[in-house]
Amino acid sequence: MATALWELAGVEDDRLFSPYCWRIRMALLHKGLAFESLPWRFTDQAALSFSGQGRVPVLVDGSRCVHDSWDIAVYLDEHYNGRPALFECSQARSLALFVKHWCETQVHPATLRVIIGDLFDAVHPRDKAYFRQTREQRLGERLETLSQQSHSALPLFRASLDPVRPVLVAQDFLGGKGPSFADYILFGPFQWARAVSPTRLLDPDDPIYAWRERMLDRFGGAARQMRGYPVWA
Amino acid sequence: MATALWELAGVEDDRLFSPYCWRIRMALLHKGLAFESLPWRFTDQAALSFSGQGRVPVLVDGSRCVHDSWDIAVYLDEHYNGRPALFECSQARSLALFVKHWCETQVHPATLRVIIGDLFDAVHPRDKAYFRQTREQRLGERLETLSQQSHSALPLFRASLDPVRPVLVAQDFLGGKGPSFADYILFGPFQWARAVSPTRLLDPDDPIYAWRERMLDRFGGAARQMRGYPVWA
Repeated sequence: MATALWELAGVEDDRLFSPYCWRIRMALLHKGLAFESLPWRFTDQAALSFSGQGRVPVLVDGSRCVHDSWDIAVYLDEHYNGRPALFECSQARSLALFVKHWCETQVHPATLRVIIGDLFDAVHPRDKAYFRQTREQRLGERLETLSQQSHSALPLFRASLDPVRPVLVAQDFLGGKGPSFADYILFGPFQWARAVSPTRLLDPDDPIYAWRERMLDRFGGAARQMRGYPVWA
Repeated sequence: MATALWELAGVEDDRLFSPYCWRIRMALLHKGLAFESLPWRFTDQAALSFSGQGRVPVLVDGSRCVHDSWDIAVYLDEHYNGRPALFECSQARSLALFVKHWCETQVHPATLRVIIGDLFDAVHPRDKAYFRQTREQRLGERLETLSQQSHSALPLFRASLDPVRPVLVAQDFLGGKGPSFADYILFGPFQWARAVSPTRLLDPDDPIYAWRERMLDRFGGAARQMRGYPVWA
């Protein structure tokens, strides 16, 4: 039976901007699993009712349905253990859980403040009211105010990545010689930004820039080919 | 031939406060390797000249001499690969390198600002001038000024640990079911503080508190028995 991934999309079906969904898109490519992309918007709650919850990514794999990006990654490695591993050993999986929480508490909020105005422009028209209400409540400011502050948010975004720079000088990927699920976790916010914003997040001499190029090149340039802005813009 | 560890000590030979040396003390216990502790002070530069550099930890293992805590850990796993692993696989080692840089850029500076006054009191009298000069230069303030600010530094220390809390709710150790070198890295700043300061770093209901208890209990309570303050103080 077929494999399908419910993914958050913007104005266009292929403007995929969820950092959580990008983790799983890259994970499926890593495992070499073909899948159908099912575009979803924030307000398409009814479409996900089969999964018992209301957020993407949701993976439908034959008769199985798995949600939550971490649980999907664990499922993929356990269910397809003959294919390239996302986690090379259980300790690597445990340490990747730290990377996940570090990225979500430090990098995601810093990214959002850089791209929020562009992000609002890119969400589907029928999602705009939902997006405005939930994000203004979460961040305690009007979107327009936040958008005006986005330039000053860029240095904070770059500083949030300080712990990762020396690692990517010492090795090509967080996972070492090749990408791990931890790399796909960190790649998420970069694709989130790239899908919606022309902001130049990184200087070309930043070691994270070279890592992102390596990630964009993987799987025949799959991530680079998705709708978004060139990262050198 | 014998194994010996050069470790930073304070007023007393067993007041061991270097977070880098604690990583290796715990790593040697993890590997089940007996070793002699050689107390060292910042101003004992001549004593380390055999190692070609001037910082601890330095491991002397028979005819070999290894310095830098990361390199020592890698050496121990490679040279004693029949003993319990610090890194379960190469990907876990690569991800532990991220934990190292995260801890050193986020947790170490935050810890130092909490304990700096107590730390100055605990360094050996012949190290005090060196300590004052280097730390005041690094931090851009007089030690007395920093010490007066230490109470306000505590919330920032606790916030620096935000990414680790949900991980230690989901699993007993950063490494999963058992401690990894990443756990010893994070344990370093706690032992640094414990050796010199009565400050209560964590609330007992913090999941990191329970993790620290597990770490203090390892190896027959080896870390708890070293000179320092009870962590419930």
